Amino acid sequence: MSIKQTFNDILDNIDDVIAQSSDLGVSLWQDFLDIHPADIAQFLSDINQDKAKVLFLAIPKKLKFEVFSYLSEYTKKLLLSTVPDTERSALLSSLPLDELTDLLDYLSDEELKNYLKLLHKKDREKVVSLMQFESESAGGIMHTDVLTLMQDLTIEKSINILQRLQPKKELHRVIYVTTRENELVGYINLEDLVLRKPVTKLDSIVKEAELIVNVHEDQEKVAQDMSRYKLTIAPVVSDNNIFLGIIDSDALVGIIEQEAAEDVYKISALTPIKHTYFETPFSKLYYQRVSILAILLLTQTFSALIIKHYEDLLTGFLIIFLTMIASTGGNVSSQTSALVIQGLVSGEISDANRYRFLWRELLMACAIGGTLAIVSFIRVFATNPDPSKLLSIFSISLSIAAIVIVSVMLGSIIPLVLKRFKLDPALSAGPFLATIMDILGILIYCNISRIILGL
Amino acid sequence: MSIKQTFNDILDNIDDVIAQSSDLGVSLWQDFLDIHPADIAQFLSDINQDKAKVLFLAIPKKLKFEVFSYLSEYTKKLLLSTVPDTERSALLSSLPLDELTDLLDYLSDEELKNYLKLLHKKDREKVVSLMQFESESAGGIMHTDVLTLMQDLTIEKSINILQRLQPKKELHRVIYVTTRENELVGYINLEDLVLRKPVTKLDSIVKEAELIVNVHEDQEKVAQDMSRYKLTIAPVVSDNNIFLGIIDSDALVGIIEQEAAEDVYKISALTPIKHTYFETPFSKLYYQRVSILAILLLTQTFSALIIKHYEDLLTGFLIIFLTMIASTGGNVSSQTSALVIQGLVSGEISDANRYRFLWRELLMACAIGGTLAIVSFIRVFATNPDPSKLLSIFSISLSIAAIVIVSVMLGSIIPLVLKRFKLDPALSAGPFLATIMDILGILIYCNISRIILGL
Repeated sequence: MSIKQTFNDILDNIDDVIAQSSDLGVSLWQDFLDIHPADIAQFLSDINQDKAKVLFLAIPKKLKFEVFSYLSEYTKKLLLSTVPDTERSALLSSLPLDELTDLLDYLSDEELKNYLKLLHKKDREKVVSLMQFESESAGGIMHTDVLTLMQDLTIEKSINILQRLQPKKELHRVIYVTTRENELVGYINLEDLVLRKPVTKLDSIVKEAELIVNVHEDQEKVAQDMSRYKLTIAPVVSDNNIFLGIIDSDALVGIIEQEAAEDVYKISALTPIKHTYFETPFSKLYYQRVSILAILLLTQTFSALIIKHYEDLLTGFLIIFLTMIASTGGNVSSQTSALVIQGLVSGEISDANRYRFLWRELLMACAIGGTLAIVSFIRVFATNPDPSKLLSIFSISLSIAAIVIVSVMLGSIIPLVLKRFKLDPALSAGPFLATIMDILGILIYCNISRIILGL
Repeated sequence: MSIKQTFNDILDNIDDVIAQSSDLGVSLWQDFLDIHPADIAQFLSDINQDKAKVLFLAIPKKLKFEVFSYLSEYTKKLLLSTVPDTERSALLSSLPLDELTDLLDYLSDEELKNYLKLLHKKDREKVVSLMQFESESAGGIMHTDVLTLMQDLTIEKSINILQRLQPKKELHRVIYVTTRENELVGYINLEDLVLRKPVTKLDSIVKEAELIVNVHEDQEKVAQDMSRYKLTIAPVVSDNNIFLGIIDSDALVGIIEQEAAEDVYKISALTPIKHTYFETPFSKLYYQRVSILAILLLTQTFSALIIKHYEDLLTGFLIIFLTMIASTGGNVSSQTSALVIQGLVSGEISDANRYRFLWRELLMACAIGGTLAIVSFIRVFATNPDPSKLLSIFSISLSIAAIVIVSVMLGSIIPLVLKRFKLDPALSAGPFLATIMDILGILIYCNISRIILGL
């Protein structure tokens, strides 16, 4: 039976399953407990909250901890509220410190105070100190429960420490080496412990880290640097070179996913939402969406002013193609700025080659502008084969060419300018630039028509 | 002196540096050779190609290999063409097999044949067999030069093998264990070699893999599964469970970056480009961009038909707000579908909760539609405080409310429908849906105005 089938059957017979009152209930529950905790966690997030609470409470303790670790922050918070205080305290303590901090970020001040009380004093102090870091800085995403070794240890002694601490501290293929004062010295590889002689001192084999991340560094910069050096793990230090934690591939993947999602949101006229869709309150999401749309709507009223101003010109034939022409500029600029933004994200477009890029885009603008002018001429003439309208059709085509060239150039320059002023280039993609190009497009169209038609 | 300064000075004095004809040239070259190979590789990709070739040729052999490994495929191909045949063969052989295969994907058939000749027979056979896999399948991205151990080995014997093979085979924190026939059995952790007794047999400590990836699996699915199980490494097997390679965190990061870039492209009316911006030929990029824009332009001519049909209605006051109204639908649908697409990518919106999602969006549609109707009423009335126009202004507001509700609902349903038919939901975001909403918007506006104004 597939996992999906099991889940569906459990939902259909949830009372039986919880009460264990029938053979079916007992056997479904056995199947359920054999499923991977990550899949159970996903299932609990997807279903009705009341059912999720009942099922979670019934899961045996050991599996409950595993399932809990795979839940999203939102579902963690939800299910924590259903368990008794002692279990809540145990569940919280079972999380690695950085995940615990992420979870606490979700709580109201009141809840936060209550939850902090449930932690052991030592954990509480660590959590509070971690919560100081910006959530999008290296400090906000680093893992802290990491095994480190001191430089004056031997391989043999290191293995002893490993045996003692292994289940409590995270172990990675790279083990960082510090001084007695916890300053970062470098790293050794896990396999060095296997391959080197037991008497070897760590400081004789320690290697220098290619990249050392400052705790205040922005996470996007961290991801770019790690990707340039092809690293999947990097140490995080304080301003005084004190080792604080690591960015591992887990965190790296998280950063890249988050930054990619943020870019998609910005390109589509959305403020990046910190929580996921269902976890963001309705009122907050409403406010974010409506405020941007209202700004775009009010900006668009400039087009009304322009159309009103050229009212006499825009009669009959010319008005018919108004929205076609207005939207072309927006489409072209969206397309162009997506290319630039992606190039900047990947680091391919840089200060060193930006003129080469702009030159190439200028050629591209002329090629695309010329082609679309011809396409629109043929299209409009085909449905209006009237020699007396040739001049009007010509002004439509010429407007399209001009609009395309302006849109490509603005679409490529504006992200670079934003970046120069340390603003996020992704802001320029999509609706904002498109709206400006709509308005500029109408202006270009009206002026070219006025000149050509001699009105 | 900063790295950037060194690079600039080298470009300014490139003849001196290559000829080593002055103290400045000698000292700049020394500085250059001390820079991290990843940074040198980035520098060589950014500068003029002729200068890059000259500098690369002058780099000492060992560093040259390191720099080469950090270059993009495009620059690798470029610089390979400048080195003598023997060195070319050595550079090719220095790459891991999967990177070599990626590079060969870039070559013309003619070049490919010549390059394959340069490889040793055994490498050549392996490369040819790897090139059979789809480049976006697990087989196309897996790493193959991975150390595996057989299940009947002891810890002691395993360490011997590790000592012998370590520099040649990639080592990870997870080591996969196979039968003598190379069938996947499970895995041990690298630290097991340190912590377990030398006589322990591997099959007594081997753990079952949480996730086993089939070689034909799509890379996006692989990334989603790995992220659900919080894995940063997974084994790849053939249909007969023969171990073929691994997806490691490197590859995982690559997939996520590539899929994110593809989403950004699709949202912005671009076909995803396989190579990066500068590596895509001008003609190909031109064709991709202009063909989508031409389709959008021709689609927009439907709006011309509608406007022509309602020509008598759209005079004076109503025409002024035409583009404002048309663009609102596009903005709303882009915003909505970006939310859905991101929700589908992250797995948050699924079959299990799609009705909950649609219900929430319907409420959101009414809230946003109502608000924007009020905003537009105030805006238009403020500049046209004429009681005789109240009915027209009312029809503008009502049209905006209707358009917003239709746009939000289409923007949320269409990605779900596309997904249902196994099409990429990202296609629905941005220009395509926006263009349809522009046209629908004009239609809604004309009809509401006609009814309200009784024309």
